[in-house]
Amino acid sequence: MKLASIFNETRDGQLVVVNKAVTKAVAVPEIAATMQAAIDNWKETAPKLKNVYDSLNANSSDSAVFDISSKVVMAPIPRAYHWADGSAYVTHVELVRKARNAALPETFWTDPLMYMGASDAFIGPNDDIEVENEAWGIDFESEVAVITDDVPAGTDAKSALDHIKLITILNDVTLRNLIPDELAKQFGFYQSKPWTSFAPVVVTPDELEGVWSDGKLHLPLRSTLNGKLIGSPDAGVDMVFDFGQLIAHAAKTRSLIAGTIIGSGTVANQGSPTGSSCLAEVRCLEIIKDGKATTPFMSFGDRIEIEMNDKEGHSIFGKIDQVVKAYQKK
Amino acid sequence: MKLASIFNETRDGQLVVVNKAVTKAVAVPEIAATMQAAIDNWKETAPKLKNVYDSLNANSSDSAVFDISSKVVMAPIPRAYHWADGSAYVTHVELVRKARNAALPETFWTDPLMYMGASDAFIGPNDDIEVENEAWGIDFESEVAVITDDVPAGTDAKSALDHIKLITILNDVTLRNLIPDELAKQFGFYQSKPWTSFAPVVVTPDELEGVWSDGKLHLPLRSTLNGKLIGSPDAGVDMVFDFGQLIAHAAKTRSLIAGTIIGSGTVANQGSPTGSSCLAEVRCLEIIKDGKATTPFMSFGDRIEIEMNDKEGHSIFGKIDQVVKAYQKK
Repeated sequence: MKLASIFNETRDGQLVVVNKAVTKAVAVPEIAATMQAAIDNWKETAPKLKNVYDSLNANSSDSAVFDISSKVVMAPIPRAYHWADGSAYVTHVELVRKARNAALPETFWTDPLMYMGASDAFIGPNDDIEVENEAWGIDFESEVAVITDDVPAGTDAKSALDHIKLITILNDVTLRNLIPDELAKQFGFYQSKPWTSFAPVVVTPDELEGVWSDGKLHLPLRSTLNGKLIGSPDAGVDMVFDFGQLIAHAAKTRSLIAGTIIGSGTVANQGSPTGSSCLAEVRCLEIIKDGKATTPFMSFGDRIEIEMNDKEGHSIFGKIDQVVKAYQKK
Repeated sequence: MKLASIFNETRDGQLVVVNKAVTKAVAVPEIAATMQAAIDNWKETAPKLKNVYDSLNANSSDSAVFDISSKVVMAPIPRAYHWADGSAYVTHVELVRKARNAALPETFWTDPLMYMGASDAFIGPNDDIEVENEAWGIDFESEVAVITDDVPAGTDAKSALDHIKLITILNDVTLRNLIPDELAKQFGFYQSKPWTSFAPVVVTPDELEGVWSDGKLHLPLRSTLNGKLIGSPDAGVDMVFDFGQLIAHAAKTRSLIAGTIIGSGTVANQGSPTGSSCLAEVRCLEIIKDGKATTPFMSFGDRIEIEMNDKEGHSIFGKIDQVVKAYQKK
């Protein structure tokens, strides 16, 4: 099934069930008011939500059904309790390091990189990316993400797969020129990772039959900047740590709360044969080839679109479609 | 006024108003069901909560009033959206580096260290500290923390002070032996910072007249391990970055949501004349003096108590009183 959160004057939005084609939706307050409430009690809510989904797809003429495009769609969990982003496509990390003549530690292939992200700074698929200063080096990062139920501390990678309840794609907005100083301090990203935006809908694993296996999503992720395709690497290829391994890493010393969102990191394929999922990688390839980067980071007014289509060419999660805008302090 | 969250079978607990002596409390569902709900709408809820607080202190005989010690107290916001921990007592960082013969970068005195913590892994003042392996190097860190309302991106340090609505103390549980590998990866703490526990109550700044000024809390913070005082450094001394500066740092590129919790980092005074707020610092002092550390990290069964008294010797926030316990996977 497919779910979304739509704006309703509250901070957490209204949970809605969305049809397979991502065109129609219906609110389900009698099952759960919010996405968080649904995942808090997933065993009870999931079958009920599935019933609504099935009848919605059967062209239900219920008067409560509305056109989803007529609503403001929020992030699936507009404010979440835990957002952990891995860096599972190690080939991307290797490339970035190669461009600055730094070696990749061998452990990066066996011990996942993961940082704690800003779970209170989630924005919707069509929200502007508001940044104060273009000189901060505005970039997108296209990723796959999963949402878990409660995960006990010490859960192993195989068992962790059973805790994946929802799957989507996201844009991890990154301010590249703020990164070097933050990484040098060793305390992780903070100012350099302001906003994270999500596709309109999240889907259950059963919705991805044949393309979701071994904790990976085996489909290309398309990133388009100002109408030009930047890349469509396959998210199922070169993912060194699957989502089960990423969850197990996050839960090694503590439990994870229901509604935890785990990101894959920037999707990338070895050698970047079908392009990249962020401008930093494009620039690194230019540096390695020509000695300098010629592609600039994003400017105010730039438009980024991120989407994943199924094998028949239908958008699975709906489209992330955002414009970068100068931030004006209110 | 003083507020707390008590266990009520829900994930977020029940907001209660607590009297000044931290002995009596009353639930206030008609004002706000949870601490998060209160801070979400602070302008409206704060005056109402204050009225309840005033009548509670006036020895109200309301039958709804109960003995707070008879209840399970949770973290003030049992699951929060944002937990950012600074490292404002730079003298502590300097000492830790000195013990391993590493220089302190000059920028550490002007640019705050801050990491994103696990806001979904908050525990109550009397909850066990569950850890799987003693060899991970179990330590406490005693800190001061503030809770903000909504903070717009780009807020300056002075204006940031107005966003501080609640103040408390906390224990940032740290697994010392997992830190070196995590810091080497530059992505910040993750497995090495599992749980954070809080004192029973949070208080409004007006409750701290004469000791809360310039964004600092000017009182000693007492840490006692197995009945032995480890330290009582003054939280108002050697705090290089006040809470206004820490909030401004966190909000440089993005807004902070209401209910954001900002920590001071381990409280420490130059030269540690009244002891330390964590065992790592005790061990560093031993290394600098004797060439090796003799104080061990915490073991299963160890009891840590953290408290802050006012100038008359009364506990302001109630006591953090926890025992370290071997984690058994459920």
